[in-house]
Amino acid sequence: MEDIIKDIKDDLKDLETSIQKLVTTKVGFIKDIVNYIIRSGGKRIRPLLVILCAKLCGYNNNRHISYAATIEFIHTATLLHDDVVDNAKMRRGASSVNVLWGNEPSVLVGDFLYSKSFELMAEDGHHEIIKTISKATTALSEGEILELLQTSDIDTTEEQYFDIVKNKTATLFSAACEVGGMLGNISEEERLALRNFGYKLGMAFQLVDDILDYTSYDNVLGKQVGTDLKEGKVTLPLIHAIASAKPRERLTIKKILNKTNTTPGDFERVRKLIVKYQGIEYTSRIAREYIDDAKQALTIFPFSPFTDALMKLANYIVRREL
Amino acid sequence: MEDIIKDIKDDLKDLETSIQKLVTTKVGFIKDIVNYIIRSGGKRIRPLLVILCAKLCGYNNNRHISYAATIEFIHTATLLHDDVVDNAKMRRGASSVNVLWGNEPSVLVGDFLYSKSFELMAEDGHHEIIKTISKATTALSEGEILELLQTSDIDTTEEQYFDIVKNKTATLFSAACEVGGMLGNISEEERLALRNFGYKLGMAFQLVDDILDYTSYDNVLGKQVGTDLKEGKVTLPLIHAIASAKPRERLTIKKILNKTNTTPGDFERVRKLIVKYQGIEYTSRIAREYIDDAKQALTIFPFSPFTDALMKLANYIVRREL
Repeated sequence: MEDIIKDIKDDLKDLETSIQKLVTTKVGFIKDIVNYIIRSGGKRIRPLLVILCAKLCGYNNNRHISYAATIEFIHTATLLHDDVVDNAKMRRGASSVNVLWGNEPSVLVGDFLYSKSFELMAEDGHHEIIKTISKATTALSEGEILELLQTSDIDTTEEQYFDIVKNKTATLFSAACEVGGMLGNISEEERLALRNFGYKLGMAFQLVDDILDYTSYDNVLGKQVGTDLKEGKVTLPLIHAIASAKPRERLTIKKILNKTNTTPGDFERVRKLIVKYQGIEYTSRIAREYIDDAKQALTIFPFSPFTDALMKLANYIVRREL
Repeated sequence: MEDIIKDIKDDLKDLETSIQKLVTTKVGFIKDIVNYIIRSGGKRIRPLLVILCAKLCGYNNNRHISYAATIEFIHTATLLHDDVVDNAKMRRGASSVNVLWGNEPSVLVGDFLYSKSFELMAEDGHHEIIKTISKATTALSEGEILELLQTSDIDTTEEQYFDIVKNKTATLFSAACEVGGMLGNISEEERLALRNFGYKLGMAFQLVDDILDYTSYDNVLGKQVGTDLKEGKVTLPLIHAIASAKPRERLTIKKILNKTNTTPGDFERVRKLIVKYQGIEYTSRIAREYIDDAKQALTIFPFSPFTDALMKLANYIVRREL
């Protein structure tokens, strides 16, 4: 990571300052919650993309910082709402906001962050950027709803899975890259390339996240391992296993998906079936393909410290799984 | 009401068509929920304000319809989230979405409607309007949070109450009027007048709503009477009663506000104290003052069928309580 951010250290410092400064509200309680969730970390990958893509396209002023912060706000709003929807207990290695303050503030502070994001964008007034981001947030909510509809559905297809991932994750990655580029000088072809880069990167990111939920340890992920299974989320490693599973194994998975309380034993049984049918390898291979495609999309830009950093970021994303 | 809408019947028909048409999504489930809540009625007061104010300012094209629909979408999104926050059972005379489909879709479809609203505005691209509406939605979420923080607090002051009402209700009314006007030809003075008109109208609207929660019948309000007390909302009729209540009465109110399950007997006890200390009359008088101020703000416009309709709408809002 150090290697990726070496040329934008000042920008990242400005980002943290802006994140604090831009959440203006007279309601102290909102500040407390926003500070809690935003300061508790997170990888800042989406703002990083905005900043790197802006620099890549020769942007030399400071508006990219507030757009980077805005995209992190939107992402944070979705986390707050997700944790309510999923009844999650942990987030970024600490108790989630819904656990500490309840569902009501999580919903309302999420709404505040959404609105604040649009207010910030409206104040800056870059019409094309507002369009791009609002389309992305609409897709995001559609993705979340599609995912909700597939909960515990053993018949979830790969196609349905990829559609969910595209909407709930890849579109905002894509928008982050495009927005950065739009601040600088960008041709239609370059804009398309950045959009494509972000999209492929986002797909890979989610696939790796879904792998880690079966292979990682709690302290690496910052949330509990096995969460997807517990929440009835049918992700690619599992879809792949289900496709090859024997009828008896399929029945076991089905029962576990429909349980309201999965036990560590349930998780272990499902994990073993995923290992048996190579669900991790399969998902990992597709993630790597997405990363290769993402890097390929960047080759229309001449080599620079920023293409280099974006390539390294792509490698970092897929290497998280190791 | 018939008298108010007589000159904009075609616009209102277009509004209903637009409300259906603008919710474009490939996710059928979203359409089902949006249709359920939007078709189940509602008074359409906010879109009515957009339309009437646009006409008042000489606007003669059709963009006002999609802004009117957009503001109704934003309002609907807040209803969906409110009902989750308040754990409400009824809305617009029917079961609420959270009761029929659960909290998760209520949160996510609310998010979808918010995003869609900004997407629609971004497509139209009226910079000042996007600014006005995004500021209003930020205030709205702040108002909801302020209200949440005052839950069951017997020491809630009038000042705190008015601040909540301003943010959660009046600001969107105000924005609706301003947005309508901005579509037409409007001077800075007129814009201020419409903003002020909407603000005062919105204050009165909420005050009357808070009265009706103690005086109406379930079938008039479309939601359950006594809901505010049940949810621990300390509204003006109650604040006024608390100010005059004897220590023993105050203790009774305090106990009831802190109960998780209020009984019809509890409601009756509180209602009687409000009657005893004239909390309804007091709130009603202030609502009427707001309406008078609202109408006064309109007098800078020459008389027209549209000033007439807006005046009548103002009268209608305060007369709902009878």
